[in-house]
Amino acid sequence: MEIKVLKDILGANEQLADRNQQLLDSKGVFAVNLMSSPGAGKTSLILETAKRLKGKTKLGVIEGDVSSSLDAETIGKEDVPVIQINTGGECHLDANMTNNALGNLPLQDIELLLIENVGNLICPAEFALGEHKKVLISSIPEGDDKPFKYPLMFHKVDIVLINKIDLSPYLKFDAESFSQAIKGINEKVEILQISCVTGQGIEQWVSWLLTQMSRRQS
Amino acid sequence: MEIKVLKDILGANEQLADRNQQLLDSKGVFAVNLMSSPGAGKTSLILETAKRLKGKTKLGVIEGDVSSSLDAETIGKEDVPVIQINTGGECHLDANMTNNALGNLPLQDIELLLIENVGNLICPAEFALGEHKKVLISSIPEGDDKPFKYPLMFHKVDIVLINKIDLSPYLKFDAESFSQAIKGINEKVEILQISCVTGQGIEQWVSWLLTQMSRRQS
Repeated sequence: MEIKVLKDILGANEQLADRNQQLLDSKGVFAVNLMSSPGAGKTSLILETAKRLKGKTKLGVIEGDVSSSLDAETIGKEDVPVIQINTGGECHLDANMTNNALGNLPLQDIELLLIENVGNLICPAEFALGEHKKVLISSIPEGDDKPFKYPLMFHKVDIVLINKIDLSPYLKFDAESFSQAIKGINEKVEILQISCVTGQGIEQWVSWLLTQMSRRQS
Repeated sequence: MEIKVLKDILGANEQLADRNQQLLDSKGVFAVNLMSSPGAGKTSLILETAKRLKGKTKLGVIEGDVSSSLDAETIGKEDVPVIQINTGGECHLDANMTNNALGNLPLQDIELLLIENVGNLICPAEFALGEHKKVLISSIPEGDDKPFKYPLMFHKVDIVLINKIDLSPYLKFDAESFSQAIKGINEKVEILQISCVTGQGIEQWVSWLLTQMSRRQS
């Protein structure tokens, strides 16, 4: 019974996600779903991305959180159109919430839409939003065993950003075995080491984003 | 419809959690539910606790994970009875999973049962397991804004352990405003700063555990 309900929800979600993607395509918007544990650095990465894309690409942001509008307020200071979704207890965004947010964004003025999902390594992996690419930010304080514990998330994403790499001297984190574990789950995934503090890898991340956008348009 | 199903599940879970607690009480077992984000340090804390309680209290451990038995293998090396629950995709433990685990543990040889929940700040807060106390481990790399984003979790727990405090020199984390935010949500909660690397605060944590156990028994 419980499983049937879940399947119904997931099926309905997939259909609505497809419609979201059609809407985004019709407006020429490329959408990226950013997922991570709580505090892995999603908002900081969006801020760094916004700074580097200023004048190059028209950005929009959807902020997902269980509660509060802290992140939307932070992003709003960068003069980027932003909508906060409060899920009211739900542990992930879904296609319906995203659809509501899309209706409240000036899509004609957006080329790249960054969607910050709820901080959670489990449920967000199951719910498509209509995005073109899925990104996982995995920060090194979380440890290098995470691919074994949250395999679906690592399996579903197009790129893994290993964040907070500036903390390497102070932590036991084996980036090599971490990357090997990820590749064992997801052969085609790209992996980048980044730091929003030192700026390491951020240019490559922005370049990856722009490449994905141009591939989609051509 | 979706909400009704959730309420039914939560109601049934509460009933089974009560029965779990009756079982634990009849065997003289004190149970603690350890919750946190992925990689905040639950397993490391259990290891440190096991070392300090050796010869003082008979420990048992339930390890909850979406996938893998890595943590149970780590704990098992400490010569502590341990059961791994793999939730198979579920983002939290529940009373039924806990009940199955209890049936497979030598409860007559256990005085303190540490239950490591799935790494997630949202769903585990909603599901009682039958535990006597709820503990949140919040690590400083996650940032000091977490009480605002995950208020239910901070509201439900009896103690918050601020972990990885040894990384303070390398991170922007305001422990004072973090603690104030927690107290605003949960007036009676206790707060301890700890590090499983330097050992800071671990004696106080173990002492807190033993005090809670003795209060329950008297």
